[in-house]
Amino acid sequence: MKREFAVIGLGRFGGSVCRELSEEGMEVLAIDTQESKVNKFRNIASHAVIADATDENVLKELGIRNIDHVIVAIGENIQASILTTLMLKELGINKITVKAQNDYHEKVLNKIGADQVIHPERDMGKKIAHSIISNNILDHLELSDDHSIVEIKASSKLIGKTLVELDIRANYGCNVVAIKPKHSKDINVSPMASEMIREDDVLILIGADKDISRFERQLIIED
Amino acid sequence: MKREFAVIGLGRFGGSVCRELSEEGMEVLAIDTQESKVNKFRNIASHAVIADATDENVLKELGIRNIDHVIVAIGENIQASILTTLMLKELGINKITVKAQNDYHEKVLNKIGADQVIHPERDMGKKIAHSIISNNILDHLELSDDHSIVEIKASSKLIGKTLVELDIRANYGCNVVAIKPKHSKDINVSPMASEMIREDDVLILIGADKDISRFERQLIIED
Ligand SMILES: Nc1ncnc2c1ncn2[C@@H]1O[C@H](COP(=O)(O)OP(=O)(O)OP(=O)(O)O)[C@@H](O)[C@H]1O
Ligand SMILES: Nc1ncnc2c1ncn2[C@@H]1O[C@H](COP(=O)(O)OP(=O)(O)OP(=O)(O)O)[C@@H](O)[C@H]1O
Ligand SMILES: [Ca+2]
Ligand SMILES: [Ca+2]
Ligand SMILES: [Ca+2]
Ligand SMILES: [Ca+2]
Repeated sequence: MKREFAVIGLGRFGGSVCRELSEEGMEVLAIDTQESKVNKFRNIASHAVIADATDENVLKELGIRNIDHVIVAIGENIQASILTTLMLKELGINKITVKAQNDYHEKVLNKIGADQVIHPERDMGKKIAHSIISNNILDHLELSDDHSIVEIKASSKLIGKTLVELDIRANYGCNVVAIKPKHSKDINVSPMASEMIREDDVLILIGADKDISRFERQLIIED
Repeated sequence: MKREFAVIGLGRFGGSVCRELSEEGMEVLAIDTQESKVNKFRNIASHAVIADATDENVLKELGIRNIDHVIVAIGENIQASILTTLMLKELGINKITVKAQNDYHEKVLNKIGADQVIHPERDMGKKIAHSIISNNILDHLELSDDHSIVEIKASSKLIGKTLVELDIRANYGCNVVAIKPKHSKDINVSPMASEMIREDDVLILIGADKDISRFERQLIIED
């Protein structure tokens, strides 16, 4: 049986959650008060309805009780977000994820029993700050406090060299786990030692942060 | 010499960028039209000023020309975001990163020469969708539309088996690039074939989304 989801609030964040869940083959009920928002999801979500989620009867009529996991992505209207969460909880929803606007909002959400409270803007801000500090790091996944996976642009120091020539593992303690060519969707997720790095390639590198920094300083930053 | 940054727009996203850059020791000039926003950053950023970034003379007076990298995090007011970007470009700013609200906004920003256009809500929505679909996927880095790196909890089907026994690459098309033991900070970033998976291990897996899903369905989800 497919698990069922509902996304309440189809702004940029909720809309993206709804789209990605749908693309991954999930059943999604998409809800927003604005007709224009709902229309955008008619062909994406399994069901898209114009409804005010702060109205308990509306939620009941939509059969929200049968849904495993509800994502509340109502933004600016904190009161509506809190009220909706409260009612979902009372209706016995198994898992409720809510987008918070600020610390006060988060505190209230935790108190009324939201299972997961998320801060997309804050988290993304942190992520972007790190990629901004290093011009070369395009994306970053923190594995632990001192290990990461990064996407890093190949520099002129790397272009034309093969992985075996560079021997990054022996020389820098980190590993190239994938190579992403710029103008192709074909990511190579198990590059051979003989693989040559080309212009505009992006390397996916795993290792200790200090090793990644050393790699970046020595092989990426142009003199 | 420390690099200098400016963040224009101190909403949740811009505020988070400003805070994180400052915490990492960077010089940051924080700008917003709202006094209340600016006040929050007086003790965080190197400089915090109330100013309208769409006014060219104001930007000049702030000495924005001496700043290496400007982040435009003006949200709802797309026109202000575009106008600001245009002027920063004309003033010769080296690197301009802009938050986009939608595809139209992104297109214009690229046309007028923004160096980097980001969609924090959209990107975070995708990320959250993936962690929501699978209770087993702890974190997720999207390499492309259909390739990802995920952190996934080892299941009872995996515990006690070695990587060579499982032969995940041959059987599922994806690769285990690292193993993270729960109660240790020692991430193994180049696990050997003979490596045995233990209870509470987290696997870092790279591959096509469909291969990762198949791996998860067959080897992670408990019957
Ligand atoms: N009571 C409600 N029931 C259903 N949807 C609602 C309700 N109140 C607000 N919404 C919808 O929630 C969506 C997100 O809200 P809003 O745009 O205020 O937040 P936001 O944080 O700016 O969003 P984002 O950053 O995700 O674009 C909007 O499309 C809005 O119409
Ligand atoms: N012309 C301008 N100059 C400087 N700051 C501006 C200007 N216009 C808007 N801002 C500021 O930009 C900030 C972000 O804008 P807004 O809140 O509309 O976007 P948002 O996408 O909802 O933000 P977030 O999601 O980051 O909270 C606000 O604090 C706003 O005061
Ligand atoms: Ca860290
Ligand atoms: Ca908003
Ligand atoms: Ca927002
Ligand atoms: Ca995808």
